[in-house]
Amino acid sequence: MSKVAVIMGSTSDLKVMQDAIDVLKELELEVEVDIVSAHRTPEKLFEYGKNAHQRGIKVIIAGAGGAAHLPGMIASLSPLPVIGVPVKSSNSIDGWDSVLSILQMPGGVPVATVALDGAKNAGILAAQIIGTSNEKTLNNIISYKEALKKKVVDGAKEVSGAQ
Amino acid sequence: MSKVAVIMGSTSDLKVMQDAIDVLKELELEVEVDIVSAHRTPEKLFEYGKNAHQRGIKVIIAGAGGAAHLPGMIASLSPLPVIGVPVKSSNSIDGWDSVLSILQMPGGVPVATVALDGAKNAGILAAQIIGTSNEKTLNNIISYKEALKKKVVDGAKEVSGAQ
Amino acid sequence: MSKVAVIMGSTSDLKVMQDAIDVLKELELEVEVDIVSAHRTPEKLFEYGKNAHQRGIKVIIAGAGGAAHLPGMIASLSPLPVIGVPVKSSNSIDGWDSVLSILQMPGGVPVATVALDGAKNAGILAAQIIGTSNEKTLNNIISYKEALKKKVVDGAKEVSGAQ
Amino acid sequence: MSKVAVIMGSTSDLKVMQDAIDVLKELELEVEVDIVSAHRTPEKLFEYGKNAHQRGIKVIIAGAGGAAHLPGMIASLSPLPVIGVPVKSSNSIDGWDSVLSILQMPGGVPVATVALDGAKNAGILAAQIIGTSNEKTLNNIISYKEALKKKVVDGAKEVSGAQ
Amino acid sequence: MSKVAVIMGSTSDLKVMQDAIDVLKELELEVEVDIVSAHRTPEKLFEYGKNAHQRGIKVIIAGAGGAAHLPGMIASLSPLPVIGVPVKSSNSIDGWDSVLSILQMPGGVPVATVALDGAKNAGILAAQIIGTSNEKTLNNIISYKEALKKKVVDGAKEVSGAQ
Amino acid sequence: MSKVAVIMGSTSDLKVMQDAIDVLKELELEVEVDIVSAHRTPEKLFEYGKNAHQRGIKVIIAGAGGAAHLPGMIASLSPLPVIGVPVKSSNSIDGWDSVLSILQMPGGVPVATVALDGAKNAGILAAQIIGTSNEKTLNNIISYKEALKKKVVDGAKEVSGAQ
Amino acid sequence: MSKVAVIMGSTSDLKVMQDAIDVLKELELEVEVDIVSAHRTPEKLFEYGKNAHQRGIKVIIAGAGGAAHLPGMIASLSPLPVIGVPVKSSNSIDGWDSVLSILQMPGGVPVATVALDGAKNAGILAAQIIGTSNEKTLNNIISYKEALKKKVVDGAKEVSGAQ
Amino acid sequence: MSKVAVIMGSTSDLKVMQDAIDVLKELELEVEVDIVSAHRTPEKLFEYGKNAHQRGIKVIIAGAGGAAHLPGMIASLSPLPVIGVPVKSSNSIDGWDSVLSILQMPGGVPVATVALDGAKNAGILAAQIIGTSNEKTLNNIISYKEALKKKVVDGAKEVSGAQ
Repeated sequence: MSKVAVIMGSTSDLKVMQDAIDVLKELELEVEVDIVSAHRTPEKLFEYGKNAHQRGIKVIIAGAGGAAHLPGMIASLSPLPVIGVPVKSSNSIDGWDSVLSILQMPGGVPVATVALDGAKNAGILAAQIIGTSNEKTLNNIISYKEALKKKVVDGAKEVSGAQ
Repeated sequence: MSKVAVIMGSTSDLKVMQDAIDVLKELELEVEVDIVSAHRTPEKLFEYGKNAHQRGIKVIIAGAGGAAHLPGMIASLSPLPVIGVPVKSSNSIDGWDSVLSILQMPGGVPVATVALDGAKNAGILAAQIIGTSNEKTLNNIISYKEALKKKVVDGAKEVSGAQ
Repeated sequence: MSKVAVIMGSTSDLKVMQDAIDVLKELELEVEVDIVSAHRTPEKLFEYGKNAHQRGIKVIIAGAGGAAHLPGMIASLSPLPVIGVPVKSSNSIDGWDSVLSILQMPGGVPVATVALDGAKNAGILAAQIIGTSNEKTLNNIISYKEALKKKVVDGAKEVSGAQ
Repeated sequence: MSKVAVIMGSTSDLKVMQDAIDVLKELELEVEVDIVSAHRTPEKLFEYGKNAHQRGIKVIIAGAGGAAHLPGMIASLSPLPVIGVPVKSSNSIDGWDSVLSILQMPGGVPVATVALDGAKNAGILAAQIIGTSNEKTLNNIISYKEALKKKVVDGAKEVSGAQ
Repeated sequence: MSKVAVIMGSTSDLKVMQDAIDVLKELELEVEVDIVSAHRTPEKLFEYGKNAHQRGIKVIIAGAGGAAHLPGMIASLSPLPVIGVPVKSSNSIDGWDSVLSILQMPGGVPVATVALDGAKNAGILAAQIIGTSNEKTLNNIISYKEALKKKVVDGAKEVSGAQ
Repeated sequence: MSKVAVIMGSTSDLKVMQDAIDVLKELELEVEVDIVSAHRTPEKLFEYGKNAHQRGIKVIIAGAGGAAHLPGMIASLSPLPVIGVPVKSSNSIDGWDSVLSILQMPGGVPVATVALDGAKNAGILAAQIIGTSNEKTLNNIISYKEALKKKVVDGAKEVSGAQ
Repeated sequence: MSKVAVIMGSTSDLKVMQDAIDVLKELELEVEVDIVSAHRTPEKLFEYGKNAHQRGIKVIIAGAGGAAHLPGMIASLSPLPVIGVPVKSSNSIDGWDSVLSILQMPGGVPVATVALDGAKNAGILAAQIIGTSNEKTLNNIISYKEALKKKVVDGAKEVSGAQ
Repeated sequence: MSKVAVIMGSTSDLKVMQDAIDVLKELELEVEVDIVSAHRTPEKLFEYGKNAHQRGIKVIIAGAGGAAHLPGMIASLSPLPVIGVPVKSSNSIDGWDSVLSILQMPGGVPVATVALDGAKNAGILAAQIIGTSNEKTLNNIISYKEALKKKVVDGAKEVSGAQ
């Protein structure tokens, strides 16, 4: 069974990262959640990054704010695709620090970065990755996109009608 | 056979995007290259996005500069994972336009964004995605990372010796 | 009869875009409103962009936030002048993403960009465009500007008097 | 006959603004070129802005760099649509000053802003505006866009062939 | 008698600009207040800029927000020193637009720019300018600075005592 | 005799600051030039700031780059108007550091900031300040602005002719 | 006895700087607190900077906002290590002014800069500096880091359990 | 004997980091140089960070570019003071990525950040830290600062003489 890991630097990131967990469940994927702080629990970071691919995890979603090193360090340690979610933490300089600390990885060690606080998209992207080898998940994504479309079409009717 | 598509908005992006093509070949993956301009060939964009997953492509890497709409529009049209490479084009405002146009996708339609001009990392990320269901590719990535490490270790010897 | 289209990526943009609708009506122009999401309803986007100029529309105002692709994609598909309104959406990085995604279009495909959340100005600009071939609209604009002036003059009297 | 005015703050802006003149001629429009400095020739600015619409000009393209006040001041004085081209001048702070001075106009006085140094797009946009009431110009634009497309298609063949 | 003019683009700027008026009165200078909108009352702008130095005004303080053209246009029209106050207006992009539109004036036409919303400093600077030829005002400034110092010294006592 | 002081943090700033010296001489003002480093010669800074107004100096122009403290510290020490020139030094982050370190002074201690590398404007502003009490200087400024205008008018002729 | 000085530009900075004081006490270091304004009490600044190392102070933590000159000027005057805390003051441009004014010091005069409003980290860093020659303080830091780790581990248990 | 470690993420950083090595030697401190890549040699990073304080190292200077995780990860692993040097690498977005990735560390794990490419200041800061418990080093710093002053004074003579 393919599993997606959702990790974050601090419990305070959970209010953002919950969106990833929710959409992964909606897309019928198994999720594992943990707190791994690059700066406060470096040993756990190491162990986690080194072993994740050996216990059934296929994709790691890592969220962090400020000088956000968790996604990049996990990407350094694991051969799995790592999705980074820049979290706009309380002392952040408008989110730029989180975005740039995650996005601008050096050649050789990619992090698949999504929008600021874009945890939902991280979940969908993880499902798309699983979907490259799992037809059921691929179909779930196709259905998910159809539902998005329907919602816009319904909104459009309302707006055009109101003018 | 799993195939990775590398597309870009203009032939002038090729000097950046070649890095993705090269690393994919180095990691022994099949690559397909094309020019698809969101703004100049919208019909081709549509057809490409709609059909890619039906002809063996597993991951799409899309590079574009300025108001870079190619990665996001492909992500809108395809259920496949899309990797966006922000290209620092000649009239770019220091690359910020490319980065933000690709990264800040709305909820529901992710683009896996890599660093500015980070085409090499886009290639590696695509391989990591293929590697989630293909052990040979996973092992190629593990070897690739070992080679990176060796290069740093060799550099370290030289530098410490020189002081 | 000249018609101005006002489209937007999501119903949540309506609170900003209503200003365009209001000023267009004030300037006695016919308005058509719709929701067209570049990322969630790409087929509608295509159809809309391809056909607008064939059903009496003269100018298209398109508002969107974040990685805002709607204005640029409509401009790609239509020969009409397209006015882009960068909307400061909730997850925006201070509006920079919307502004740059709309403004920095490549050579060949212009979008007439107005200020962040500047939907009112988009409406006036559309009227000015209609006014290039319609004297009544041109005169409405001249009157509109006179009214603006009068309001400042009245404010000036109050302020000078109060000191 | 519809005429498009191309004005700029300094002769040093001509190397950028020439692109607007060239594309307008290519699209078979009559062009008038002048230097009007908001800061050094304010009287000329006033006269120009006040009278342009009375002598056959339909659209004004204004280019300026740094604290770029020319487009906005012309928009303040004229009922015509004004297209602003932010020029990246030598002392500019990466072009941000030109962009923001032109884009962020207050409610009531729009400037149709194009990309940094985007004079070609300013010319095309002016033609699109003329095209709203002139079928020949509209058709010229449609042909122009077809030519852009063809160029991309040709480039695509070359690139795909080379891999 | 030396007079300082305080002008602003809109009555909504008064809540910021009042600080300039207050400190000028505290420093015993005569103040004249007016609303002059570069974009909505361009004729008044011209007249004001052309004549100010001929009716006893020695320094002009001009506050404006967004694409703030008032300070620069007054500087273009008047030989007097012009102090610009960037106002952080409601639709501003974090104040950057106001700051850059006022600060980045081209060679030949300076605006003495103060901090974002720094109207108090604009008033003090105007007084310092008057003080270059008026000993009483110079002494008022020296006393004003002594008072600032005393306030810090008092605050220091409290803070050190509290630890 | 009114004197203008031009000081800078390092001899390397002279290539920028020379513009201030040149225009002041052109406007027939007496200039005094010195190197005063806030960070390397703090004692000289203190002495300079404390005494300048007592030896005939009327305005101080201070140029510095990076974390530019010279203009603000001189403004802290002297009751004279201080004009700050942000210099784009070699390690500067695109000039933003110099601009913000000089512009964003706290309430009570203004620095009259000019554009990045805008030393010429600093010289003209100093002359305008002297001109508030010296008719000859005021007239020199009026003539200077006339010359600027003439140069633009001449350029305009050439450009219009060439099209 | 080693003493750490905590100084700040204004009593309004205390709500941020208190975190430094608190963590220093928690790490059992002696703290001295004072208000020293670079711009309002320059004489006190000089005296403070010149003498601090002669009365038992080993490290100076200096916090300031806006065009923050206090840390850099203290670093100019003292041979001690100076830690700068950029404070996001009320008129700050998103904190960028404070950060750049403190960080971008010229060669020869370092300021050890911490994150925006990062006073707690300034305190810890000061302790780490004392710890280079004081084993008890070094051990206190090691314990402090262990406590941080424990807190994350506890949070992790809760979060994993809740899913 | 107190030793300062200078480490960097890649041999390409050496051209910047050499300044730190040089000034440390000039200030008569023992230096140890190594390449430690957070992203390519994570095991070495761990070992290095864990053990440095146990083999005589007192301060660690870490330089890195882009998404620069080396300084922060070393700070996470070591109780020693860590000085971070943001290096402006080739693909950097104007250096902002390096600066923010190093500066914006979360509470509990400080990095003493110096200016972009400010390796010389990192060396001086390290010496100041050693100087808190080593009088000879403190005196070397005092002499170093005297030499800086002298150089400025000499430059001042030249400049004043030349005018």
